[in-house]
Amino acid sequence: MKAAAAVPDKLRVPSGLAGVEVAETRIGKSDSDGSLVYRGYPIRELADNAGFEETAYLILNGSLPARAQLLEFSSALKSSMDVPPKAFEVMGALGGGAHPIDALRTTVSALGSLDREGVAAAQQRSIEGKMAVLAANCHRVPRGERPFLPDGKGGFASSLLRMLTGKSIEGYDLWAFERVLLFYMEHDLNASSFTVRVVASTLADPYAATSAGLAALKGPLHGGANEDAMKMLLEIGDPEKGKEYVDSALERKVKVAGFGHRVYKKFDPRAVLCKGYLREMLKRRGEDDKIYRLCDAVEAEMMERKGLPPNLDYYAAPIFYLLGIEIPLYTPIFAASRVFGWMAHYNEQVAENKLIRPDAVYVGPTDLRYVPIERR
Amino acid sequence: MKAAAAVPDKLRVPSGLAGVEVAETRIGKSDSDGSLVYRGYPIRELADNAGFEETAYLILNGSLPARAQLLEFSSALKSSMDVPPKAFEVMGALGGGAHPIDALRTTVSALGSLDREGVAAAQQRSIEGKMAVLAANCHRVPRGERPFLPDGKGGFASSLLRMLTGKSIEGYDLWAFERVLLFYMEHDLNASSFTVRVVASTLADPYAATSAGLAALKGPLHGGANEDAMKMLLEIGDPEKGKEYVDSALERKVKVAGFGHRVYKKFDPRAVLCKGYLREMLKRRGEDDKIYRLCDAVEAEMMERKGLPPNLDYYAAPIFYLLGIEIPLYTPIFAASRVFGWMAHYNEQVAENKLIRPDAVYVGPTDLRYVPIERR
Repeated sequence: MKAAAAVPDKLRVPSGLAGVEVAETRIGKSDSDGSLVYRGYPIRELADNAGFEETAYLILNGSLPARAQLLEFSSALKSSMDVPPKAFEVMGALGGGAHPIDALRTTVSALGSLDREGVAAAQQRSIEGKMAVLAANCHRVPRGERPFLPDGKGGFASSLLRMLTGKSIEGYDLWAFERVLLFYMEHDLNASSFTVRVVASTLADPYAATSAGLAALKGPLHGGANEDAMKMLLEIGDPEKGKEYVDSALERKVKVAGFGHRVYKKFDPRAVLCKGYLREMLKRRGEDDKIYRLCDAVEAEMMERKGLPPNLDYYAAPIFYLLGIEIPLYTPIFAASRVFGWMAHYNEQVAENKLIRPDAVYVGPTDLRYVPIERR
Repeated sequence: MKAAAAVPDKLRVPSGLAGVEVAETRIGKSDSDGSLVYRGYPIRELADNAGFEETAYLILNGSLPARAQLLEFSSALKSSMDVPPKAFEVMGALGGGAHPIDALRTTVSALGSLDREGVAAAQQRSIEGKMAVLAANCHRVPRGERPFLPDGKGGFASSLLRMLTGKSIEGYDLWAFERVLLFYMEHDLNASSFTVRVVASTLADPYAATSAGLAALKGPLHGGANEDAMKMLLEIGDPEKGKEYVDSALERKVKVAGFGHRVYKKFDPRAVLCKGYLREMLKRRGEDDKIYRLCDAVEAEMMERKGLPPNLDYYAAPIFYLLGIEIPLYTPIFAASRVFGWMAHYNEQVAENKLIRPDAVYVGPTDLRYVPIERR
C-alpha cells in the first residue's frame, strides 16, 4: 500500500484575494500605474490602430492575425450570430419585469442545450456571436418586442450597434463605439473572468462558464457601473451643479458612480481615451458639449476631494448615451465584449488545468454533541 | 488632494489555490484526517440523530433549531416548492437532448426573473424548495414528460425521493437516502461553493449565485462522479471481476470513478457511513448483497494498488441505484442538497464582504508595437 499523499502547508491570504497572484497569464495585464496591455500591446497602440475582430483574435490567439486568419475568424463570428428561435422563446418567457442581465444569463445558459456545436473552438465562436445578438435584445424580447437581428452587413461593432439602436451608425461615432468595445474586452482577473476560470477548472463547458461569468456581472460591485454613472449624470444634468452634487454625495456617504478601481489608483487609461473620444464626437457632430463639461466638472471635484480618478464605465456611459443606446443595455454591451476575454481565460485555465479549490480557516465551535429537540 | 492608496504587496500562491486559506468560515470543516464537522457537530453525530430540515437549519443558522423554529423553517421550505409554470415551460423548451444539469441551471437562472420573492431570506427558501422540484424533473421535463410535483406530504427527503422515483418510499430506505442528502449538503470551499462566494462577493442575488454554482457542478472534476461510479459498477457487474477491472484500468491509465479527494487522504467519513447503510439496506430487504461485495472488491484493490480511499460519490451511487433513481439524476440530487450549503456560504460572504478579485502574474511579452495587417 502506498503512503497517503503529503498534506500541503496552509497559507493564509488577504480577504478578497487582493494582491494574491493565483495564476500565470499571457492574456493581459493592468497595472496600478495606469498601464494596460493585451497580449503585450499597450492599450493605446490597439485603440489607435486596431479593429474589434483583430483585437478579439489577438486576445484569443496571442498574436495579431494575418489577413487570411482575420477573414476566417470574422466570417466564423458573423455566421455564428444565428440564434436558434428557441433561445428567443426562452428569453420571451421571462416577461417584461426581467432584468436584462438575468435574461441574458438564462438564455446563454439555454444555448448550452440548444446549440449543437461539438468542438470547443466552434462552441466558443458560437457563444461570442450569439452573445452579441442576445445582449442587444435582452431588454426588448422579455418585454414582448420582436428581436433586432443582424443584417449580415459590416463588422462586429457595426452589427452590434445596429441591433442595439435599430439604426445604422457609421463614421467617427461607430469608430468610438468600437474603441469602447475594445476596452471592455479584457481586464485580467476581474470577478467575472475569475468566476469563468473557477468554473473552467472543473472542466465544465464554455456555455456553463459563460453563464457563471454573467452571474458575476449581475452584482453591483462588478457590472452595472456604466448604467449607474449615466443615471447620475442625467440626475445632475448641469455642469454648474457637478461640484455641488459631489460635495453633497460625499457628505451623505452616497457612492459617486464611475470612480475608483481595485487596480488603477492614479488613472484608468481607458477612461482617459474615452474622454477624448467623447469630446471629439461632440465636436464632429457640432453639438453642445454640455455633457462633456458635466463629466469633467464631476471628475475634477472627485479628484480634488477624494483623489479618485474616473474609470472606464464613467466615460463609456455618455458615449453610449450619445449613440442613443438605452441605459439598461450598457452592462449587456460590457458582456458582449468581455465574453472574448472570458473565452481566452477559459482556454488558458484548461490548457494547464488544476481544479480551483481553496481552503478556509474554520473559526467555529468544535466537538458539539447532538441534543434532542425537546431539550433545546 | 489625497494621496493614492498604497499598492498592496503581491503574494504568489500555489496553483488551484491548493492549501490557500482564502476566508474564515463558521459553516464547516473537512480535514485530511477524515473528519468533517457542520457548525461544530461531527458528521457522525448528525448522521446518527438528525433529520434533513434540522441539519439544513443548522448549516444556515449556526445552531440546531428549537421545535417552533424547525416547524417554521420546514413549512417555509415546503410552501416554496411551488414552481411557477413558466419555469417548466423554459425547461421543456430545451428539448430531450438537454443535459440535466444544463436544464437545472437554466431553469434556476430563469427563476431569478420569474420568482417575485423580494427579501433575501425568502428568496433563499424559495430557491432551496424549488431546486428540489426542478432537480427531480430536470431529466423528465426536457424530454416532454409531465413533471412529478410534490404532494405536500412528509418532509423534504421523502418529498424529493417521491418526485425522483414516482413512488412513495419509507422506512430504512428513506432514512438512508436522507443521510446521503445530509452528506451532500456542505463541504467547505469545494469548487461550486467557492464559485457561489465569488459571485456573492459582487453582491449579485442568490439566483445568480446559485446558477453559477450549478455551472461549476457541470464540470466532470466536480459533479458527475456519482453517475460515473454507478456506470462503472454496472459495467463491472460481478464482484469477482472487481480486481481485474481495477488492474486493467490502472494499466490503461483510465480513471477509476469514485476514488480520491482533494481533502481526504486516509478516508472519507461519509463514504464509510454510506457503505454501512448500503449493507444494512440490502440486509433489511433480504436481497442478494452482490452490489455491496462488488463495491468492496473494487475498494480493496484501489487501496492495495493506489492507497486511495473511496469518496462519498462511490457509495452514494449504489444507494441511489437500489432506490430506483435514474442515473442522470444523481448529480441533480447533489445539487438539491448542496444548495443549502451554497446559501450558507452566500450569507457568510455577504456578511463581511470584500469583492473577490485576485491578481495574476503576467508572463507574456511587453511593449509590442502594432504592425499593419499587410506587413504581418
